[in-house]
Amino acid sequence: MPRELKEHPPGERNIKLTIEYDGTDFSGWQVQREERTVQGEIEGAIAKVTDERLRVKAAGRTDAGVHAVGQVANFFTRSVLPAERIAAALNAKMGADVAITAAEEAPLSFDAGRDAVGKLYRYRIWTRRTRPVLERRCVSWVRADLDAGAMRKAAGHLVGTHDFNSFRGEGKVAKNTVRTVEKIDFDETPDEISISFVGTGFLYMMVRIMAGTLLEVGRGGLDAGEMPAILAACDRDAAGPTAPPEGLCLVEVYY
Amino acid sequence: MPRELKEHPPGERNIKLTIEYDGTDFSGWQVQREERTVQGEIEGAIAKVTDERLRVKAAGRTDAGVHAVGQVANFFTRSVLPAERIAAALNAKMGADVAITAAEEAPLSFDAGRDAVGKLYRYRIWTRRTRPVLERRCVSWVRADLDAGAMRKAAGHLVGTHDFNSFRGEGKVAKNTVRTVEKIDFDETPDEISISFVGTGFLYMMVRIMAGTLLEVGRGGLDAGEMPAILAACDRDAAGPTAPPEGLCLVEVYY
Repeated sequence: MPRELKEHPPGERNIKLTIEYDGTDFSGWQVQREERTVQGEIEGAIAKVTDERLRVKAAGRTDAGVHAVGQVANFFTRSVLPAERIAAALNAKMGADVAITAAEEAPLSFDAGRDAVGKLYRYRIWTRRTRPVLERRCVSWVRADLDAGAMRKAAGHLVGTHDFNSFRGEGKVAKNTVRTVEKIDFDETPDEISISFVGTGFLYMMVRIMAGTLLEVGRGGLDAGEMPAILAACDRDAAGPTAPPEGLCLVEVYY
Repeated sequence: MPRELKEHPPGERNIKLTIEYDGTDFSGWQVQREERTVQGEIEGAIAKVTDERLRVKAAGRTDAGVHAVGQVANFFTRSVLPAERIAAALNAKMGADVAITAAEEAPLSFDAGRDAVGKLYRYRIWTRRTRPVLERRCVSWVRADLDAGAMRKAAGHLVGTHDFNSFRGEGKVAKNTVRTVEKIDFDETPDEISISFVGTGFLYMMVRIMAGTLLEVGRGGLDAGEMPAILAACDRDAAGPTAPPEGLCLVEVYY
């Protein structure tokens, strides 16, 4: 598919933003009427700073409750504000649960969504008997003994290029459901298991369904050896439940 | 000083609690009329679970806004509830920002405050240009380039047994202001400097005044070589400002 040749008025600049947010009190990334969203918060701040009503386009439209430390987005502006002052100016107009951590000038052809070649998501599972307190907004508490070895084994079957139709949430259309998961890494502490997913792209809800399916394996409800059959079924009902949003964080977008 | 011989009614047990809390929405540890405090929250939960109105005594009475992951406290009860079920029972009656992480039977002579032989506090300073988001409740954001080398050097002068009267907050009486700071360790990441203080005991506000003074050195407002004179002055005005509470956490109490 050839790149769309977009006309840019003279003086228009393309600004690339890196964004961190605590998704707890947002209804996700994407603008919705009457709901507080990250995109809405940023676009509202831009309107206050540059007096422009414009769209900010993100690399990954995270769902309600999902966090980010390295979300990337871009927008076209005619403002002459230096890139290095944009972050502070926007941050001053936004809530404490979101911040622009970097703003930089990008070529006019840069598109945060289309140009992303990979993403790193992390899913944090709280395994301590007692509920999380300081970490309570950023982890998913699982009240069960998990077999991390079985989870790692199951994850190994997901790595690679597969048709991930069994791991696709309803409500979004995707013509091509083949994706490449480059790696899945586990990091264990006495209190939590954190799973990192690196892939070229993920279907709607795919990371949360992978996490939920791995959790089901950890609980003993599914066997690691069943993963190839779950993939082959190309049927959402074959996979495990969708893990809750609070454990998920978009850590980095690769270009 | 000989230990007070306390009379215990037959069947009375001593329960040792380990407690984690996010201090943001608490007016500190100690019970206050009309204020939400950690002690009040725990005593209220005990009243609901065992129908007893009693006092819970902590190792360290943390100030408003200060956090804990390893606070220790004890209380005497006539309840027959097994120790291993007390944590879950109390947690069910408390807010999401506090949890009993362990409850165990202790000898009747055990006193969480008097028997503590040391404590580990950690002070987290957020040094990233951009404000903290996911960590915003647990760090103190300092908008300055800090000279961590000078801070380490200054901290070296505080380690040891000294009269810490210059590092004592007003409002609490302490006859003896000599304390031993066993070690002060620094841990640096690109986003933060975290300082761990281990000591046999700390005066009122002492950790926050040490952190504030080290910050002043980091900013260049004080020289590391001035620390011996600040200690020798035995005057609160000689030390730096009191660092804000949100960066402080009581990590562990040693017995």
